[in-house]
Amino acid sequence: MAPDAIDQVVELFATLPTIGRKTARRLAFHLLRQPPEFVEQFAASLVSMRTAVRECTQCCTFTDRDVCAICASPKRDRSTICVVEHPSDVMAIERTHEYRGLYHVLHGTLSPLDNIGPDDVRIRELLGRLDGVNEVILAINPNVEGEVTTLYIARQLQTLGIRVTRIARGVPVGTDLEFADDATLAKAIEGRTTL
Amino acid sequence: MAPDAIDQVVELFATLPTIGRKTARRLAFHLLRQPPEFVEQFAASLVSMRTAVRECTQCCTFTDRDVCAICASPKRDRSTICVVEHPSDVMAIERTHEYRGLYHVLHGTLSPLDNIGPDDVRIRELLGRLDGVNEVILAINPNVEGEVTTLYIARQLQTLGIRVTRIARGVPVGTDLEFADDATLAKAIEGRTTL
Repeated sequence: MAPDAIDQVVELFATLPTIGRKTARRLAFHLLRQPPEFVEQFAASLVSMRTAVRECTQCCTFTDRDVCAICASPKRDRSTICVVEHPSDVMAIERTHEYRGLYHVLHGTLSPLDNIGPDDVRIRELLGRLDGVNEVILAINPNVEGEVTTLYIARQLQTLGIRVTRIARGVPVGTDLEFADDATLAKAIEGRTTL
Repeated sequence: MAPDAIDQVVELFATLPTIGRKTARRLAFHLLRQPPEFVEQFAASLVSMRTAVRECTQCCTFTDRDVCAICASPKRDRSTICVVEHPSDVMAIERTHEYRGLYHVLHGTLSPLDNIGPDDVRIRELLGRLDGVNEVILAINPNVEGEVTTLYIARQLQTLGIRVTRIARGVPVGTDLEFADDATLAKAIEGRTTL
């Protein structure tokens, strides 16, 4: 019923995460109500983002330079590396203003079932930048694949004599205990700290 | 923290309906993980949609031709026009396969508080295409602005001696009465039909 040009945009929007067909249709119609200049700017921004942004040659996060702002900063503690799955995790941790070390972005997790092995994530790149590093903090998402990846990296690093830590798993701040799932609660008890 | 190119895309995504800043960020990062060709195709589709799609010269719905497929079809009943707010409403009614007449898309509703008057929606265009029309069905959304618009158009058409109807307001199919709001239930009782 709709012109093909609209259908095509709906199809493409619907491939994006969190966007179903209904929302995709709504977004397409919204863009049709905007001035052509807005849509052109939107399209140009997408292309120039994808062209400009690449991986930092040191930590593999997204950057528009060879070396990202964090790796280039003289204020960061170069003896600590925090390993995360995605560039968005770097930003999440930066927003806490609690961490002053460097990062390393894996761009995924090991997943034998999906044929994703150590060479498909940036583990080799991590092993190649451990000169002068005292501690590696593993901040990988606490799910099955994350667990596999955490243990794999921990084992690799322990043979090199580097201190390996992982971020605490426990009850989120601001929630009620009764709403925490069993696994989280078990980890919270296991990881209890002395007052 | 993020490169400007990413921030700009996040800002633009966040201007779209149903997309908050968190989702906008997620979409931007998703696109960064796609091949450059995909992002280029996505951008090109947006621009070509906005360029190709305009309003049908008869019913004002979105089309990539002068006259939309519905207005051009010899199979449609030209004596009935169904008035809706948006092109997406046309598609919603078409999906029911219940209606064989023509449409007219207002592209909005009257809203005195927002300074949207009769000249800002396609009411004049509607009044200009009533030759040979016996019935106008008003299928405008049942909210305050929709009500104002429905009554305004009804009054204009009644002076021309055309039959004006509105779609039924009542309890949605498949829900429980207890979940219907008072206004809907009142309209359902008022509009009861004989069995």
